[in-house]
Parts: sequence; structure tokens; C-alpha cells
Amino acid sequence: MKRAFSVDELKQTAPRLAVERRAVRFQDVDAAGIVFYPRVLEYFSDAYMIALKERGIDLPAMIAGGTIKLPLVHAEADYLLPLRFGDTVEVEVLAPKLGDTSFTVGYRVTMTTAGRVAAIGQTVHVCIDGARFTPCPLPDDLRSALA
Amino acid sequence: MKRAFSVDELKQTAPRLAVERRAVRFQDVDAAGIVFYPRVLEYFSDAYMIALKERGIDLPAMIAGGTIKLPLVHAEADYLLPLRFGDTVEVEVLAPKLGDTSFTVGYRVTMTTAGRVAAIGQTVHVCIDGARFTPCPLPDDLRSALA
Amino acid sequence: MKRAFSVDELKQTAPRLAVERRAVRFQDVDAAGIVFYPRVLEYFSDAYMIALKERGIDLPAMIAGGTIKLPLVHAEADYLLPLRFGDTVEVEVLAPKLGDTSFTVGYRVTMTTAGRVAAIGQTVHVCIDGARFTPCPLPDDLRSALA
Amino acid sequence: MKRAFSVDELKQTAPRLAVERRAVRFQDVDAAGIVFYPRVLEYFSDAYMIALKERGIDLPAMIAGGTIKLPLVHAEADYLLPLRFGDTVEVEVLAPKLGDTSFTVGYRVTMTTAGRVAAIGQTVHVCIDGARFTPCPLPDDLRSALA
Repeated sequence: MKRAFSVDELKQTAPRLAVERRAVRFQDVDAAGIVFYPRVLEYFSDAYMIALKERGIDLPAMIAGGTIKLPLVHAEADYLLPLRFGDTVEVEVLAPKLGDTSFTVGYRVTMTTAGRVAAIGQTVHVCIDGARFTPCPLPDDLRSALA
Repeated sequence: MKRAFSVDELKQTAPRLAVERRAVRFQDVDAAGIVFYPRVLEYFSDAYMIALKERGIDLPAMIAGGTIKLPLVHAEADYLLPLRFGDTVEVEVLAPKLGDTSFTVGYRVTMTTAGRVAAIGQTVHVCIDGARFTPCPLPDDLRSALA
Repeated sequence: MKRAFSVDELKQTAPRLAVERRAVRFQDVDAAGIVFYPRVLEYFSDAYMIALKERGIDLPAMIAGGTIKLPLVHAEADYLLPLRFGDTVEVEVLAPKLGDTSFTVGYRVTMTTAGRVAAIGQTVHVCIDGARFTPCPLPDDLRSALA
Repeated sequence: MKRAFSVDELKQTAPRLAVERRAVRFQDVDAAGIVFYPRVLEYFSDAYMIALKERGIDLPAMIAGGTIKLPLVHAEADYLLPLRFGDTVEVEVLAPKLGDTSFTVGYRVTMTTAGRVAAIGQTVHVCIDGARFTPCPLPDDLRSALA
């Protein structure tokens, strides 16, 4: 279970692809008053979608076209600080680590008031040929958009 | 804005199509500790899906087939009691009121511990011809399944 | 079931309290490929929270303080156009209609690409004395913030 | 980043604490028609809550009491098969691996129609003294309930 990003990379360094500033919403917390842990992965996903769009990757068109698919095969997060309703966070998408047929995206969520990292994580995506349902090399345009 | 179900019908009477018993989940509440109001409409939807399935309506196949669509054009809910994590509720789907090209489904959410109605609501669905995107009469099999 | 806002008011007029521009997210749609209907009420809620904040109402502090509560007792929405992943919408919060112990907030969701109204709705909130759990008059500062 | 459960343990063995059978809901999928990946962590959480309840751990009372907290510090999932609306799954909560001040819970999601594992995962929870906000040993009753 070797991961593409080390904890130190996720916490401190790495160039970033995109960033989204957002408020912890009224409905993001659970009965303990803390952000419900799967919601942090939704924060990751939302920022990843923004990164794709900013890099010129049109995911709605890619889904409609069906030539390739980019399903997620692994996701993980470390929760370092509790987040509560009223907090504001910055969600950074770190520059992906590219393999032949897959890539790993890193994430860092910083509580803007405290200036401290509240969560980190990474997701692994594979490139699948839409017709044959087998792994395929990352297309060049996707590769350069993510680099 | 005349509705198919009166408040009294929703609260007290009407034969039911299906019922789902469920717990208020850890993540269903908001920062005020009460069930977040759109979640109650998710409860409605989940119970409606169970009702369709129990009546032999295969929604996944209907979506794949595309002959007709049943989009929702109106939804409403009244919130009578606060629901909290740990509460158990019974969600009833009331027998729909059928029109020519639309139908209205009623819902009643009862807090099982207190035996009191916590929420009521109704949703209006129209039948759309999948090829022409215009309203069409409810097919006979759907009409008899919902009756 | 008389409502504070008429359909025409919601669709066309009324001064607005706040507006949020947002994208329909990857996870906002359902298996039919259309925004899942309770998500539109989440859009309402998110924009309402922005409106409160912009008007100087500190809801996290109000919840912590517990002097008054503002529970929602009714919510409704009309769905006029299907929204899909990739669409961008503008969610307007219309200036509330204030009663003695309650207020109604109106909402309008416009698909920005088409420039057409995709959904409208309203929510009714009551003011509750946090100690006695009975309805109480809207405090003057809240009344002027919402006006 | 050594994990308490190996992939093989998660896939094949380990005694289980609880199991929940559920349908993939209409709103659990994303615009690609596959279960949105954070939803699988919600499946984990829902089944974990059932496990706590079945083992006599009253989480709502524990939250209200505030003596100890059990925040989650890590979550991860591997996605092995795509899940779609209409699929039925069985979510197993595997017997936790207990440390002094923390424990790791394993999860396995099996697609019941195919009889194949669709997702696995694990979550790490720490025991925190509610007054001093420092890690504390797992209480004996919690330890025996989870064993």
C-alpha cells in the first residue's frame, strides 16, 4: 500500500493545480458538531473538478463521449484538526503524480483563520478505454493538462 | 397553488403504498443539531423508490429504456417536530392522486418513539414522452401499479 | 396553504437579499442525470446562509448563544427546467416577507447559460424563544437585517 | 503509513461486528452513473453506527455526556467494482484492531447480485478525554464492546 504522496509532501510542499476557498456549511457537520468525514472527500472532489475545468479538461463532454473513463480506485484522508460550521477553508489540489495508465492527485485543506492544515489526502485514478474496459495509457492532452 | 393532498389527509388518513422505518443518521443533522430540512425530502425519495419497487415498477430499467420519464415538478414539506440523531422514524408513502398526465404522492414521517407526526409532504410528478419531450398520459401499467 | 410569495413574484420580481453563482456539481445529479430534487433545497439553504452572513447575522454565534432559534417549518420548490452536471446557476435569495413571529424567504435559481428560471421556492422560518420554546416576536436587529 | 488491516484481510477474512444490507440509492451515483466515491465512506459510517448500537454503545448519549470523544483521524477506501443505481450491497464492519488509545475498523462492501467485493476500507479512531482534549486509554466497556 505504498502511496504516491508522502504525508510531508501533502502537508508542506508540492506545486498546486488549483485552489478553492469555501465555508464549512451548516449541513457539513454531524451530530458531534464536527465536519462529517466523507464530506472532506467531497471537498477534495469539488476542488479536483475545478482543477480539471481550469486546465481545459471538459469532464461533461468526456463522459458524454465515452472514449476514456477516469474512475477512482483509491481515496484516503488524514484528519488533523476538527472543522466546524463557520470555519473557512482553502482546498488545494496538488500537481498529480503521473503513471503510465494512472495518476494520483494530492489534496490539502487549510483552516484559513488558524492558518493550519486541517486535512490532507490523495486519490488514485485509472485511465480506462471506454470501448474495451481495460486500462489504457493517459492521452497526451490529459497528461499535459495535469502536469 | 392548490395541492392534491390537504394537510389533514397527510397527517391522518389516506391508504399507504409503502413504509420505511429508518434511524436519523449521524450525518442527517445540521449545525443546530436538528435534521437538515432537505434531508426530509431525501427520506421521501427513498421511501418512494421502495414503493415503486414493491409495486413492480423497475425504475433503473425505465431510465435505461427511455420510453417515458417521470420528472418531479413540485415538492413541499411541513416540519412539525424537530428530529435528532438517535430518533427512529417511519416514513409512509401515501397512495398517489392520479391525474391524466401527472400524479401527486403524499408522505408522512412519524417519530416512532413519540408516536407523533414529525413531517408531512407531497411531490408532483409528470409523465413525459421520452422521444418527444412532451407530457403524455400515464401508461396503464404505471396507473394500476400506483393505484 | 396560502403562501407569502406568489409564483409570479418568485419568477420575475422582488428585490433580492443575496445571490450565489455556483456550478451544478458532479454529485448533485441522480441516476436519471438530472439534479436530485432535494439538492435544489440545499442550494436555497446555502444561499440563505450567505445572505444571513452578508447582513451581519452571525448564525454560528446565534446557535451557540441559544437565546432564539429560527427553525424552518415549511419548504417548497417548483422545478421548471432540468439541471445537469456542467450547468452554472445563479441562486437568488429574495427579500423576506416578515410576519410578527415568522418570516418567509423566496428563492430563484436561474440557469446562467440559458438565462431562464430553472427553479423557484420559499421557506418559512419561525422565531422561537430558546428558553421557553414558544414563538416570540422577531428581534429588531434581525428584522432590520432581513428587511 | 502502515495500516492495521492488510488488503487481503479486508477482502477475505476477519470476523465481523455487524452487517447492513442496502440498495444503492437513486442519489448515490454521480454524473458518470457510478456511486460517487465519498458515498462509500458514508456506507462505512452507517454500518459502523449500526455496529456500535448493536454492541450496546449509545453514541447519542456519549456525545451528550462528553466524557470521551472518538474522532476519526484517518479514512481510506479501495474501489474494486463500479456500483450503480439498482445494485444491492452488503456492508460488513470487521472486528476492530484495538490499540491503547485508538482503534481501526475494517469494512467490506459486497455486491450481492455478483457475490463479489466492490469496495474495502478502514477508518482509524482515537479516544480523546473530553475535558482535557488529550488522547486517553480506551475505556474497558468500549474495549469489550468492540472486541
